[in-house]
Amino acid sequence: MTHSPDVETTVSGDPLTATAIVRDVTSGARSAAEVARQSLEVVAEWEPKVQAFEFLDPALVVAQAQGVDRVAVKGPLAGVTLAVKDVIATKDMPTGHNTARYKGVQTGVDAACVDTLRAAGAIVLGKAVTTEFASTARGGKTRNPHDLTRTPGGSSSGSAAAVACGMAAVGLGTQTGGSTIRPASFNGIFGWKPTWNVISREGLKVYSLTCDTLGLYARDINDFDMLADVFDLDPCDVPQSLEGLRVGFCRTPMWEKAEAPMRAAMDAAALALKSAGAQVIEVELPDIFNGIAEAHGVILAREGRSAFLNEVRNTPDIGVQYRDLVSNARGITPESARAAYALADRCRASFDEIMGGFDVMMTPSSCGEAPEGLESTGDASLNSMWTLLQVPVVSAPGLTGPHGMPLGISFVARRYGDRKAIKVAGLAAPLFEQTGDDLT
Amino acid sequence: MTHSPDVETTVSGDPLTATAIVRDVTSGARSAAEVARQSLEVVAEWEPKVQAFEFLDPALVVAQAQGVDRVAVKGPLAGVTLAVKDVIATKDMPTGHNTARYKGVQTGVDAACVDTLRAAGAIVLGKAVTTEFASTARGGKTRNPHDLTRTPGGSSSGSAAAVACGMAAVGLGTQTGGSTIRPASFNGIFGWKPTWNVISREGLKVYSLTCDTLGLYARDINDFDMLADVFDLDPCDVPQSLEGLRVGFCRTPMWEKAEAPMRAAMDAAALALKSAGAQVIEVELPDIFNGIAEAHGVILAREGRSAFLNEVRNTPDIGVQYRDLVSNARGITPESARAAYALADRCRASFDEIMGGFDVMMTPSSCGEAPEGLESTGDASLNSMWTLLQVPVVSAPGLTGPHGMPLGISFVARRYGDRKAIKVAGLAAPLFEQTGDDLT
Repeated sequence: MTHSPDVETTVSGDPLTATAIVRDVTSGARSAAEVARQSLEVVAEWEPKVQAFEFLDPALVVAQAQGVDRVAVKGPLAGVTLAVKDVIATKDMPTGHNTARYKGVQTGVDAACVDTLRAAGAIVLGKAVTTEFASTARGGKTRNPHDLTRTPGGSSSGSAAAVACGMAAVGLGTQTGGSTIRPASFNGIFGWKPTWNVISREGLKVYSLTCDTLGLYARDINDFDMLADVFDLDPCDVPQSLEGLRVGFCRTPMWEKAEAPMRAAMDAAALALKSAGAQVIEVELPDIFNGIAEAHGVILAREGRSAFLNEVRNTPDIGVQYRDLVSNARGITPESARAAYALADRCRASFDEIMGGFDVMMTPSSCGEAPEGLESTGDASLNSMWTLLQVPVVSAPGLTGPHGMPLGISFVARRYGDRKAIKVAGLAAPLFEQTGDDLT
Repeated sequence: MTHSPDVETTVSGDPLTATAIVRDVTSGARSAAEVARQSLEVVAEWEPKVQAFEFLDPALVVAQAQGVDRVAVKGPLAGVTLAVKDVIATKDMPTGHNTARYKGVQTGVDAACVDTLRAAGAIVLGKAVTTEFASTARGGKTRNPHDLTRTPGGSSSGSAAAVACGMAAVGLGTQTGGSTIRPASFNGIFGWKPTWNVISREGLKVYSLTCDTLGLYARDINDFDMLADVFDLDPCDVPQSLEGLRVGFCRTPMWEKAEAPMRAAMDAAALALKSAGAQVIEVELPDIFNGIAEAHGVILAREGRSAFLNEVRNTPDIGVQYRDLVSNARGITPESARAAYALADRCRASFDEIMGGFDVMMTPSSCGEAPEGLESTGDASLNSMWTLLQVPVVSAPGLTGPHGMPLGISFVARRYGDRKAIKVAGLAAPLFEQTGDDLT
């Protein structure tokens, strides 16, 4: 059984990854306007089924592309199409947060990440569906391109789905719990949650300053290398092959949440890595990590209380989730908040030390396959630890579960080791793909 | 010699503190529109000399006030006038960051803090002068109301000066090093840097997520109580008098930067507190704190590198300071960044423990009196440690230096102990005022 959408080619057969677009636009093989028109063809085919976008104006897309074509010296992302999660500000398209108060609201300025990407020649295709304020697990309208009866995950639902079916080359999402990496797993694409704050979060809706991170999606791992260059990520020792690589097999303290298909996928991934010469080593985290899921919850509760105060004060009919956050319904005390921050700080220092013995860790990108229905976007239990640790995570696609749905495996590096996690995910994904094909 | 501007009364004699405004507008003694007109009279008198505002439209002020007057049930800040630092977004006034690229730019949405304050009935008087992006010590056009030949400090120059001469009741600033507390000292007003992230920083220009904090100014300490209520600060044990209070006398590892007048002011403040029954106890910080100024510098360099990337990419003639940040001219490595965060984390845990033995600490709000000239806004050396510790700091006015210029004394509490620091500053300021009078 295969659900895989034909994502690598347009109707006309030209590839729409960032790598292919930049190559062609720079060489003159295609203009950015042609790329835009090809992308809009894919949109015409997929958007009625998938509903990834909150706002998409074809005229605005073509106009941006024509602007790129007018520039003599092409930027490093010339013509690359972006699906921008609708909690990320854009100066020429409304930023709605999937909530009534901000419907149609124009921010007048781009988020810093969009500003940087546009300066490099990228084009905003449209604003992608988010769950409300990127802070709830209740689904939006978007469907999983691999199976329209299933969720694409969330909260970065639209960005992930838009990349999965080839409408956009690159998707911008956010992650506070598992909102970038989980949809990457569900949609069979690469997902990257960078080291905290190495890409500016200015212009993204705030939930938790400690955890909120810009996330990125692509179908070609080389696209992440290009993005890492544009965002000036730190250089680091990058392995050229999997041979001899020390990979930690990390179940996290939340392993009970991993469903059987994900456990099988982790085992299959470990075998594949070993067959390529990597050492896969079981990781036992120190006891202090047992408190990290609770600390993540406490920190989100404390920070969400401040973050949504203005929304609650100005929105009488706002959802009970926000009213509970702001009224501190969980009863988080200053003592418990300080303790949660202290535990997170100690885990970060401990993880830095542990990573002295590994190149990367591997860990599940989601609990299992994308759940059926659109009510829930799934469970972030296996992601939130990594978010609180502020470490880079790159999810590699290739494996599938019993329903033929994608399952992602995450590679985690030390803080600022983003390029290493990207490289390993790129080396691993073809092996996973092969393993997946063998299984079916 | 006295430079003190007559800040407590308008031309008509009505007080323009938040406490007085709310009392009168709620009782009907004055309308918000009357308050607005009185405030504009003070503006007409002082603004030509002080130049605190980047944008101020009297018609917009009166219209907001009339809106407040039309509301039947008055909010807790009905009619309170705000000077909003021009790195804080406002939906009806441009947000310019004192830089060419953003001149006249409208953001379409209010920063979260402004949104909350407006919901409580406050009125934005105008956008107050900031140094460029709130990230340089080079001065803007604003002058110190106590002596027009001197700086009001920065980067929250306009907000502090506007409150000092009575144009606004409350000032909104920001602090990444010492940008709120230092101007409070220089302008002889109360300044409050809250616990990190207990007031949302959404809609404030980002420099360093770890350090950036919204700051507040007022002339009446009771105004801070009202603001603490509106922003839903945590309750805490608040002393009713100074009797028996355990006050740490904290020189910080940067004491060499404290000029003779500030050292004398600290001694005078300690004497005054002791005479009121407080215990003033010398604090010796553990050795690890000796690295905290350097850690602050490393973290600002690492975070500023990401924060200003988009500005540098889109502004060919941007200042060398930003180009140096983005090109990592200081050569901050991942190792040194991780070490700086780890040191800051350990200092935070250590400070929490140390504060078990104290109610508050007292520490200088600035190195000395406001320097002459407008070139430099002064030195943040004595402030930055507290910013990185993310603890609440409230600066109390009352003392003066040899040139008759104000000198503030800061009271510091544990994280979330904002109300305690506010209370102690309120109890101390009248004693300082008396001490100051005795000295002259």
